[in-house]
Amino acid sequence: MNGIQVASGDPIGIAVVGAGYWGPNLVRNFQTSVEFRQHWLCDLDVERAERVLGEHSTARATDDLARVLADEAVQAVAIATPAATHLEVAMAALRAGKHVLVEKPLAASSAQGRALVAEAADRGLSLMCDHTYCYTPAVLRIRDLLHNGELGELQYLDSVRINLGLVQRDIDVMWDLAPHDLSILDFVLPPGVAPVAVSAHGADRIGAGRACLAYLTVRLNTGAIAHLHVNWLSPVKVRKMLIGGSKRTLVWDDLNPGQRLSIFDRGVEVASSEELGDEQRREMLVSYRSGDMVAPALTEREALRTMVEEYARSIRTGTPALTDGRSGLRVLATLEAASRSLTEDGRFIEINDWSESLS
Amino acid sequence: MNGIQVASGDPIGIAVVGAGYWGPNLVRNFQTSVEFRQHWLCDLDVERAERVLGEHSTARATDDLARVLADEAVQAVAIATPAATHLEVAMAALRAGKHVLVEKPLAASSAQGRALVAEAADRGLSLMCDHTYCYTPAVLRIRDLLHNGELGELQYLDSVRINLGLVQRDIDVMWDLAPHDLSILDFVLPPGVAPVAVSAHGADRIGAGRACLAYLTVRLNTGAIAHLHVNWLSPVKVRKMLIGGSKRTLVWDDLNPGQRLSIFDRGVEVASSEELGDEQRREMLVSYRSGDMVAPALTEREALRTMVEEYARSIRTGTPALTDGRSGLRVLATLEAASRSLTEDGRFIEINDWSESLS
Amino acid sequence: MNGIQVASGDPIGIAVVGAGYWGPNLVRNFQTSVEFRQHWLCDLDVERAERVLGEHSTARATDDLARVLADEAVQAVAIATPAATHLEVAMAALRAGKHVLVEKPLAASSAQGRALVAEAADRGLSLMCDHTYCYTPAVLRIRDLLHNGELGELQYLDSVRINLGLVQRDIDVMWDLAPHDLSILDFVLPPGVAPVAVSAHGADRIGAGRACLAYLTVRLNTGAIAHLHVNWLSPVKVRKMLIGGSKRTLVWDDLNPGQRLSIFDRGVEVASSEELGDEQRREMLVSYRSGDMVAPALTEREALRTMVEEYARSIRTGTPALTDGRSGLRVLATLEAASRSLTEDGRFIEINDWSESLS
Amino acid sequence: MNGIQVASGDPIGIAVVGAGYWGPNLVRNFQTSVEFRQHWLCDLDVERAERVLGEHSTARATDDLARVLADEAVQAVAIATPAATHLEVAMAALRAGKHVLVEKPLAASSAQGRALVAEAADRGLSLMCDHTYCYTPAVLRIRDLLHNGELGELQYLDSVRINLGLVQRDIDVMWDLAPHDLSILDFVLPPGVAPVAVSAHGADRIGAGRACLAYLTVRLNTGAIAHLHVNWLSPVKVRKMLIGGSKRTLVWDDLNPGQRLSIFDRGVEVASSEELGDEQRREMLVSYRSGDMVAPALTEREALRTMVEEYARSIRTGTPALTDGRSGLRVLATLEAASRSLTEDGRFIEINDWSESLS
Repeated sequence: MNGIQVASGDPIGIAVVGAGYWGPNLVRNFQTSVEFRQHWLCDLDVERAERVLGEHSTARATDDLARVLADEAVQAVAIATPAATHLEVAMAALRAGKHVLVEKPLAASSAQGRALVAEAADRGLSLMCDHTYCYTPAVLRIRDLLHNGELGELQYLDSVRINLGLVQRDIDVMWDLAPHDLSILDFVLPPGVAPVAVSAHGADRIGAGRACLAYLTVRLNTGAIAHLHVNWLSPVKVRKMLIGGSKRTLVWDDLNPGQRLSIFDRGVEVASSEELGDEQRREMLVSYRSGDMVAPALTEREALRTMVEEYARSIRTGTPALTDGRSGLRVLATLEAASRSLTEDGRFIEINDWSESLS
Repeated sequence: MNGIQVASGDPIGIAVVGAGYWGPNLVRNFQTSVEFRQHWLCDLDVERAERVLGEHSTARATDDLARVLADEAVQAVAIATPAATHLEVAMAALRAGKHVLVEKPLAASSAQGRALVAEAADRGLSLMCDHTYCYTPAVLRIRDLLHNGELGELQYLDSVRINLGLVQRDIDVMWDLAPHDLSILDFVLPPGVAPVAVSAHGADRIGAGRACLAYLTVRLNTGAIAHLHVNWLSPVKVRKMLIGGSKRTLVWDDLNPGQRLSIFDRGVEVASSEELGDEQRREMLVSYRSGDMVAPALTEREALRTMVEEYARSIRTGTPALTDGRSGLRVLATLEAASRSLTEDGRFIEINDWSESLS
Repeated sequence: MNGIQVASGDPIGIAVVGAGYWGPNLVRNFQTSVEFRQHWLCDLDVERAERVLGEHSTARATDDLARVLADEAVQAVAIATPAATHLEVAMAALRAGKHVLVEKPLAASSAQGRALVAEAADRGLSLMCDHTYCYTPAVLRIRDLLHNGELGELQYLDSVRINLGLVQRDIDVMWDLAPHDLSILDFVLPPGVAPVAVSAHGADRIGAGRACLAYLTVRLNTGAIAHLHVNWLSPVKVRKMLIGGSKRTLVWDDLNPGQRLSIFDRGVEVASSEELGDEQRREMLVSYRSGDMVAPALTEREALRTMVEEYARSIRTGTPALTDGRSGLRVLATLEAASRSLTEDGRFIEINDWSESLS
Repeated sequence: MNGIQVASGDPIGIAVVGAGYWGPNLVRNFQTSVEFRQHWLCDLDVERAERVLGEHSTARATDDLARVLADEAVQAVAIATPAATHLEVAMAALRAGKHVLVEKPLAASSAQGRALVAEAADRGLSLMCDHTYCYTPAVLRIRDLLHNGELGELQYLDSVRINLGLVQRDIDVMWDLAPHDLSILDFVLPPGVAPVAVSAHGADRIGAGRACLAYLTVRLNTGAIAHLHVNWLSPVKVRKMLIGGSKRTLVWDDLNPGQRLSIFDRGVEVASSEELGDEQRREMLVSYRSGDMVAPALTEREALRTMVEEYARSIRTGTPALTDGRSGLRVLATLEAASRSLTEDGRFIEINDWSESLS
C-alpha cells in the first residue's frame, strides 16, 4: 500500500457519512476508540447529525461531503448510507485519498464493487467492508478452529437463519438474510478453500412478488458443500450453523447465550485404501469416534468495537482488513450467481470471483 | 375389489414371512390384535422362527412358503424380508389370492412396485405398505390438520433428519433416511396436492462411496416446496419438520416427547391486488398475525398397532389402506428421481407418478 | 385520597430524584409519556444530572431537593436513590404534598416503610413502589390468569432464579434476588390469598460472609406453598416459575423469548368424599387430565412504560397503584421474616403484615 | 467376611425371589451374566414364574422358598418382593448362609434394615441394595468426579425430580421419588462427607391424604446442603441435578440423552484472609472463573448389568458392594427423619446413622 501515512502514535482522523440506522453505532464506537479521533458526521439532514453527536462531541455535523473530503485531518471515512450510493460516496473518498469503510453490501452490484476494489488497490488505500457478524466472539473462534486445523478438513456447513421477518419491498429473503451467512462463510474458510458455484431454490408462497424462503447450496473448490436456509415465514426463530470437519464438528447456536458454540469430538471415518491390505479392501471400513463435547467460554465483547480496531490495524499496517473489499466483492458475486440460479430453476451457476483477477 | 371375502365377525387369518429385524414386531402386534389370527411364521431359518414364536403361540413355524400360501385359512400375508425379495414373495402371495402387507420399501424399484400394484388391482386384493411412521399419533394429527384446512394451504415443508448414523454398505443416506420423510409427506398432503419434481444435492466427504449427507427439494403441483435434509455425519440428532400453512404453521419435534407438535397462529399475509384500490396497489400490503401457540395433547399409542388395524379395515371394507401400494410406489418414484438428479448436478427431475396410470 | 388535584387533561408535573443507575430509565420514560411533564432531575452530582438530561430537555438539573419540593408545578416525585435514603427523601416529598414513586425496596426496613405508608395514607397521596417486573407482559398475564380463575385455585408456586451473580457486599442473595419473586408473588395472588409465614435455609459455602444460595418456603393462608430458590453460584442461568392451579398449571420461562408462558391443561384430581358413595369412599379416586398446552402470544412492551402509566392512573383516580406502598411493605416484611428464619435454623416465622393494621 | 466361599472360576449359583414387576429384569441380567448361574425363580404364583423363565431356561420355577434356601448350589439370592416382606425373606436367606441382594427399599423401616445389616455382618455375607440408578454411566461419572476431586469440595447439590406422577395409595411423594435422589447422594458423596440432618416441607393440595409435592433440605457434616424437590403434580417432567463444587459445577439432565452431563469450569471464589495483606482485608475479594464447559461422552450401558457385576465382585472379594446394606439403611434413616420433620413443621431432624454403630 502506498496510501495515507498515519503516525503510529496519533489517532486516525475519521469522518462518518450517514446518520441513519447504523451511523450512530459507528459514531459511538469511533468516539470511544483511542485509535480514532472523529472530526465529522455528514448527513443530508444536518439536524439529525447534530442530534446524533449530542452536545459534548468535538466532532462537527455537516451536509457538505466535499468539505469533509477536503479536510486534511480526515484520513479515513466510514460510510453508512443506502447501498445505492456506496459507489459514488466511496469512490469520491478514495479519490480524495481517504481509507474507506463501507456498510454491507459493499455496493449495489459486483461491477460497482469491483470498481471500488480496483480504485483502492491502485491507490494503496484500505477498503474495508463492515461485516459486523464476523467480529463476534463466536465467529472469530470458529475461524480460529478452522484455520488452525482443530476441526480438520471442512466436510460440510449447514446454516439455518429463519424467523418471522419483515418482508422487504426491494429485495428478496436471499439478499436480506444470506449476506450474513455468506460473509461468515467467506470469513471462516481456511486459505485455499473457496466457493465456486451456487444453486438456489426459492418460493414466494404469499404472493409477495419475491422469494420469502430460499435454499442455497454453495459448492466449494474442495468438493465440500455449504447449505443455507433463509426464511421470512417461520414463526420460530432459528440462527444455527452446523460445521462438519474431518476431526470435529461444531454447532453454533446464536440464540443460546449460555452455550453458543459446541464442539463435538464425534464423527465417522472410512479407512482409506492405502492403509488396508487386500483382504480388507473388499469391505468398507467405517469407524466411529464418540468423544467429549466442549463448549468453549467466549469473552463478551461488542463486535463493532473489534471491527473498529481491525480497521485501525489495517490502516496503520497497510495490510488488508480481515473483511476487506475483496471479501465484500465475493459475497456480492455469490448473491448475484444465486439470483441467476433462482431464475434458471436451480441450475448451478459459477461464482465469478472478480477478486482473483484484481491484483 | 373382488378378492378374498372375510366374514365380518371372524378374525383374518394371517401369515408373517420373515423373522429377522422387523418380523417379530409384526408377530407381536398380529398376536395381540383381535382382528387377526396368526397361523404361520415363515423364515428360511426355521429355528429362528420358532424362537420368535415362543412356546405358547398357536402359530406354526415353517420354511415352506408354498405351504403357507396353499393354506386356505390364510387370507393375508405380511412380508418382512429383504427388499430384493419383495417382488417375488409378494407376487406369489397375490397370485395365491392373499392380501399383502409389505415392509418399506414396497419393492427394489418402481418398475417392480408397479407390477405389484397392478397385480393387486387386477385381483381386487389389498396391497399395503408398512410406512410405520405415518401411524404415529403426531403424524396422524398433522394429516388431520392439513386435510381439514386448519393450517390453510401448504406453503412449504422443511424437514431435518440428521444424526451420527450407521453408514450403510448398499444404499446412500437418501435411500436410508428420506423414505421416512417422503412417506410422511405423501401421507399428510391434502387431496390434489402432490410432488411433481425433485432436485437433490449430496456429498460424500468421508470417501464412503455414496452420499452421506443430502438435500432434496421437492416441487409440488401447487408451487409449494418441500425440502429435506438427511445426514449421517451430524453429532447432534435432529428430527424436526416445519410445515408452513397460509393460516398456521406447525413444528414437529419428534425428540421432544413433552411437546412434539407446536401449532403457531402466526404468519405473514400479503393483500391480493383484487382487494385493493388503485392507490393501494402501488404498495405491497403486508400484514402479520401474532397469535397463540398450541401444543395439542397426543395419545400415546404404538404406531404399529394402529397400522395393523388399518390393514384389517382395508381388507374388510375392500378399500385402499391409507398407505396402500400406490403410496409406496410414489415414494419409490421420488427416490429414483432424486437419485437421477444427484447424478445430473441437481437438475429438477420429473417424478413419474406411475400410480396415476394404473387404474 | 385528598391529595394534590391534577386537572384531567393536563400532564402531571414530575421530578426525578437520583441520576444513577436506574434514574435515567425513569427520565426516558417520563419524557416520552404524554401523562407527565418532567420539570427537574435532582442529584448531588449536578453534572451527571445534566448529562442524563442532554441538551434538548426542557427539564432542569439541580442538586437542591428543597427547591424541587417547593416548586408548585411539581405534583409527583420519582425516587431512584440508594435504599438507605428512601425514608428521608420520600418523607420530605410526602410532607411537601407530592405523590411519590420509590425504587424498590420501599425502604431500608419495614418500620421505615410503614412510616411512609402511614404518611401517604394520612395525606391522601399516592405512594407507589417500582416493582418493574410486575409490569412485564408475562407477569400481567399470570396475574390475569390467577385472578379470573383460569388456573383455578393456586396449589403451589415454585420459582428458580439462579445464575453466576455478583456477590454483593452489603446484602445476601436473598435480599438481592428474592425481592423480584416476592413482589411478583404479591402481585399475582388473587384477593384473599396471602403469605402468612416463611422458612428459609441458606448456605455460604464460599466464605463470603453471607448466604450465596437460599431456599425460601412461603406458607400461604390457604395452605398452598410458594418455594423460591435463589443462587449466586450457578454457572447456568435459570429464571423459571411453575404455578400449579387446580384447573391448569403454568410455566413461566423468562429466558425463552419465543415461549415465555406455557399453560398446561393437565393435572391430577382426587374426587372429594361428598361426591362418592360408600363403596367408592374406601378407595381414593384419582383422575388425570391430559389436555393441550397453550403458549399465549404476548405483546412486546417495555415494562417501565406500563409502570409509568399505572402511576399516572393512580394519581389521577386517587386509587392505589397495583404496586402501591403496601405491596412494597409486604415484600419487606417477608424478607425480614426470612432473614430471621435463616438465623433460627429454618423455623417458620410469621410474616407481620403491617399493611393490614394501617387503615 | 467369613461367608460362603465361591471358587474363583465358577459361576455363582443364584436364585431370584419374586417374578413381578422387577424380577424379570433381574432374571434377564443374571441369565446373560457369565458371573452367575441361575438355579431358581421363586414366586407364590408358579405359573407366572414359569412364563418369565420361558422354555429355554435351565432354571426351575417354584413357590417353595425353603426348598430354594436348602439348595447347596445356591450361594446367593436376589429378592424382588414387596417391601413389607423384605425382612422375612432376606433374614431367612442370610440365616441359610446365602448372600443377599434386595430391591430398594432395603426394608420397611430402618429398624428392620438394621437387623438385616447386623445379621449379614455377623455372618460375613454380602448384603447389597439394588439402587439401580447409581449404576447408570452418568451417576458413576459424577461419583468419580467428586471422589477424585475434579469438582473440588462440594458446596451444594440441588435436585429436581418432578412430573405428572401416579399418586400412590400407600406412600407420599417423598417416599416414592426421593429414595432415588437420596441413594444417589449417598453414592456420590466423597468419603467423610455425610448427611446429618434433614428438614422437609410438603403440601397435599389435591386432598390425596398425603404430600404430593415436597422439598427436602439435607444438611451435610461439612456445612454444605443438598436440596430436593419432588412433585407428582407437575405437567412438565424434570430430572435435573445441579452439583456445585469449589472447582467446577456439574449439571446432570437425565432427560437430555445428547448431553446428560455438563461440567462447567465457572465459579466464584472469595480470597481467604490469610492470603491478604492488611489493606486488602478491608474489602472482600471476590473473583470469578469463566472457563469452558465439557459434556463428557458416556458409554451406553445398562445400569442393571453393571449392578449385577458389582454384586459378583462383592461376593467374590468379600468386600462390601458400592450400594451395600449400610447405604440402604442410610437412605431409610434419612427418609424417616424427613417424615418426622414433615410432621414437625419443617424442623431439622437429626439423621440416625445406625450404620455407624454397627461394627
